[in-house]
Amino acid sequence: MRILLTGGGGFLGARLAREILQHGLDGRALTELVIADMFPPPADLLADARVTTHTGPMLSQTALFASGFDGVFHLASAVSGECELDFELGLRSNVDSTRALLDGLRQSGQVSRLVFASSVAVFGPLHGQPMPALVTDTTLPSPQTSYGTHKLMCEYLIADYTRKGFVDGRSARLMTVAVRPGKPNGAASSFFSGIIREPLAGVETTCPVDPDVTHPLSSPSNTIAGLIAVYQASPEAMGGRLAVNLPGLNVRVGDMLDALAEVAGPDVRQRVRFERDERIAAIVGNWARGATAERAAALGLKPDASFKAIIEQYIADCRARPGYPADALGGLDR
Amino acid sequence: MRILLTGGGGFLGARLAREILQHGLDGRALTELVIADMFPPPADLLADARVTTHTGPMLSQTALFASGFDGVFHLASAVSGECELDFELGLRSNVDSTRALLDGLRQSGQVSRLVFASSVAVFGPLHGQPMPALVTDTTLPSPQTSYGTHKLMCEYLIADYTRKGFVDGRSARLMTVAVRPGKPNGAASSFFSGIIREPLAGVETTCPVDPDVTHPLSSPSNTIAGLIAVYQASPEAMGGRLAVNLPGLNVRVGDMLDALAEVAGPDVRQRVRFERDERIAAIVGNWARGATAERAAALGLKPDASFKAIIEQYIADCRARPGYPADALGGLDR
Repeated sequence: MRILLTGGGGFLGARLAREILQHGLDGRALTELVIADMFPPPADLLADARVTTHTGPMLSQTALFASGFDGVFHLASAVSGECELDFELGLRSNVDSTRALLDGLRQSGQVSRLVFASSVAVFGPLHGQPMPALVTDTTLPSPQTSYGTHKLMCEYLIADYTRKGFVDGRSARLMTVAVRPGKPNGAASSFFSGIIREPLAGVETTCPVDPDVTHPLSSPSNTIAGLIAVYQASPEAMGGRLAVNLPGLNVRVGDMLDALAEVAGPDVRQRVRFERDERIAAIVGNWARGATAERAAALGLKPDASFKAIIEQYIADCRARPGYPADALGGLDR
Repeated sequence: MRILLTGGGGFLGARLAREILQHGLDGRALTELVIADMFPPPADLLADARVTTHTGPMLSQTALFASGFDGVFHLASAVSGECELDFELGLRSNVDSTRALLDGLRQSGQVSRLVFASSVAVFGPLHGQPMPALVTDTTLPSPQTSYGTHKLMCEYLIADYTRKGFVDGRSARLMTVAVRPGKPNGAASSFFSGIIREPLAGVETTCPVDPDVTHPLSSPSNTIAGLIAVYQASPEAMGGRLAVNLPGLNVRVGDMLDALAEVAGPDVRQRVRFERDERIAAIVGNWARGATAERAAALGLKPDASFKAIIEQYIADCRARPGYPADALGGLDR
């Protein structure tokens, strides 16, 4: 089984790679995993004999895409902040690259199964209305960023390639992933991870939005499980060509911090101070306040059990997984 | 006032050209109307000293698009049937050409007002569900053709260029236009015009769907009025960046033929025979059964008064307008 993974150099992509290398897909082992990204994947993946890497822009790799894959996970993307700073980079990285991928797959003559990582960022308020309390599989998207726009355009493009029988495509809308390891990255959503990650590392940090802000989150492992389940679903079980929301745990920022105190103690919690950032608060005000995922539930997918469980997973990951820095729990006494 | 019109060689485009050349836009006269299309516009437009034409693919005309326009009507498009036959032609003509237009306009440094002719073809049944009785401004699109997919992708792309301040864009979803002059064109929707046009010309024809089929239609003149009103609306009056449905008159095929008998007599009506075409009936079964247009109503737009009025307009147009063949009413005794 030959699988292509775009974006395999990133945090989620590398984690997905490890998962499918270990467990296979559809009950079959991977014979080759081709990782295409702007950056090489982590060392443990490079060391796996089944992994081959293609580093560079996707736009130049149509021949690779046409070389014949059983399945594809398409995670590569310019992120929200990059697209807002460089409009053309966003179109190139997100729209044109996806076109190049789809056209290569089509040229291969093989109907590859394709999972596209879309995003909850396709949603936004309709003109003159506040965000609904919950976005669902059938909520009318109204993206407020170029990133969300590109994701939505690609969802529909993939649905049409699928209708034509060129690929067997599925789009899964990822909820905001937390807790991510690493440094704050300037994305407006960075604080959803930062307010947990930084205090656990012993670093003081601020929360730029009010405690009453709510948002759908998903742990890394639950997000990966969602991508794999969407891959493994039959077209009938997927229930249509339109994108499916992955499950999100709808959390309140204040409750996230209460859970942190419960898991890690009040001293850790005290390292987070509320300091409203109007720019970030305004951006987050246009985001989904919560989500449901009926179609994903029909595939057996559920949100994380609790935000406490998400923190506990992060702590366990810091202790056990590659990609988590050694000092990630430097602020944790127990 | 310098205006660009793409698709000005077609029936609707030429009619829009005549209208804005005669009446101006926003109370201002046109000094130049640039018509870009694959084919030259009709002779009466070529003879107007204010009209300049650029014939050929839009993809090669970025320099023209960057030359600075006060306003743009973007009607050029490969139609539904063409896109189904030639997938790449559709992407090139509908998606890439719109990108070229938007990028040219952006390069001009002038924030052009832009009206994009989208289509009721963005709508379709969600998986496992029948079409709703009415599609509204907030119905989740689910296109069933490449054409509808491309229109929807361009709607969102234009919304994002508008959000960024590169253009002042508006997308208006045209309902099926009837009665069109000319020959049957192989489009699945062709019969909505053909069952009126052919018998009036004295030609026997068939209706490929059941009399109980319903669909939103709009006369050519009401469609043109809609495009102009959307152009002239302030951004506030438009009420948001998402596409607006133009008004449609929701008609039943059987009632269309009753109206024909009323206007033109039973002999004319008898030239239409029901002969179900399963292929066309299946396609039409995935189309909107009716539409509402709340946002267009807020701009003062209304559906045609009745289907009888649409037929009467067609007959008057045949007698008075360029582009209607001399023998178009050869089957009408009175």
